[in-house]
Amino acid sequence: MLDFTVEDLSAEDVERLREIYRPLTESVRELIDATIRTDAAAETVAAAKAQIDAATAALRSKQIDGPFGVRFTEQGDRMPWGNAVIGLRNPVAPPLSVQHHPDGSVSADFTLGAAYEGPPGHVHGGVAALILDHMLGEAASPATSPRLTGTISLRYLRPTRLGALRVQAAAERTEGVKTFATGFISDAEGPTVQAEGVFIRPRWVQD
Amino acid sequence: MLDFTVEDLSAEDVERLREIYRPLTESVRELIDATIRTDAAAETVAAAKAQIDAATAALRSKQIDGPFGVRFTEQGDRMPWGNAVIGLRNPVAPPLSVQHHPDGSVSADFTLGAAYEGPPGHVHGGVAALILDHMLGEAASPATSPRLTGTISLRYLRPTRLGALRVQAAAERTEGVKTFATGFISDAEGPTVQAEGVFIRPRWVQD
Repeated sequence: MLDFTVEDLSAEDVERLREIYRPLTESVRELIDATIRTDAAAETVAAAKAQIDAATAALRSKQIDGPFGVRFTEQGDRMPWGNAVIGLRNPVAPPLSVQHHPDGSVSADFTLGAAYEGPPGHVHGGVAALILDHMLGEAASPATSPRLTGTISLRYLRPTRLGALRVQAAAERTEGVKTFATGFISDAEGPTVQAEGVFIRPRWVQD
Repeated sequence: MLDFTVEDLSAEDVERLREIYRPLTESVRELIDATIRTDAAAETVAAAKAQIDAATAALRSKQIDGPFGVRFTEQGDRMPWGNAVIGLRNPVAPPLSVQHHPDGSVSADFTLGAAYEGPPGHVHGGVAALILDHMLGEAASPATSPRLTGTISLRYLRPTRLGALRVQAAAERTEGVKTFATGFISDAEGPTVQAEGVFIRPRWVQD
């Protein structure tokens, strides 16, 4: 069974934590981009590395054991802040800001830069899969009750350029523990990658 | 058409660049983990952020336009250093070190930590897809001639715990421009995610 954590945090506490960690994470995202693209001299790179190591040591002076996990506040607010796609505190996440629509579908507008490259100038096919897996899962999951991927299939219509993109997904139907969902990534010219998947309600989840 | 870059670099130049950038990238990977897991006081976080911003500014004092791309040396060595899965200079990449076996199959042993989390303590399903997409593509591609994902299907046998993992993949057959490949991720107890895909030789590639 997965270990979801309930924290004794008020809405104000959560907002305060958000204000502490969001700027840090955004700075690290900028650093990731700079690390890939820098053409600075070796001494400049070495000096930057020393600053980074000092920052890491300071942050590690007090840290949690293991990964962040998924936490819930007493009010039931979800804090998936370590998540690799949407995590507020995870610099690897683009991050996606998921919009939930009245018809149950979900979407996100996002931008992918140098950190998500596969073919030159284009989104890594696996990054498209990462984003679609997450969004189909969001569409298939009730607000506080996760669904896990059972199967997912992706069709690449054409290469996806790095830059401004959109992803949307919707649940089609539910049969027992299985929810079927579909979605796609698109650029200004239309869809580039399509996905369909089956998401499973774990035995230990009570809706 | 994708823009692959040929650089005027000797093997020694490449090794020198590797020695400059690999330690920087590894430091940023450590910082990513610390950013997710820190429980330090707000002032400590703010001070770390200031150091990171200074490092970013120094690295950006001279940088390339746009993403890294895929470069080749004059000797034909591939330098996919910005790649989101294997990139030596991409802190988002775990990175995977791909082993090519005599039978044409590929494998990699790797470790995923807090930055790749989905369900608490477990690998994000989309991260498993990212890694499998890359490895099936490696298995389907000749050394210097890329294949692009046409379709890929993934089956999740059980949740994959964060930690030490292995991925392996092999090409099954080629029909015209299509190469069929399969693979899986496994932990100490066996396979956790299986994949099969069709990879396409782009029209502009001459083998």
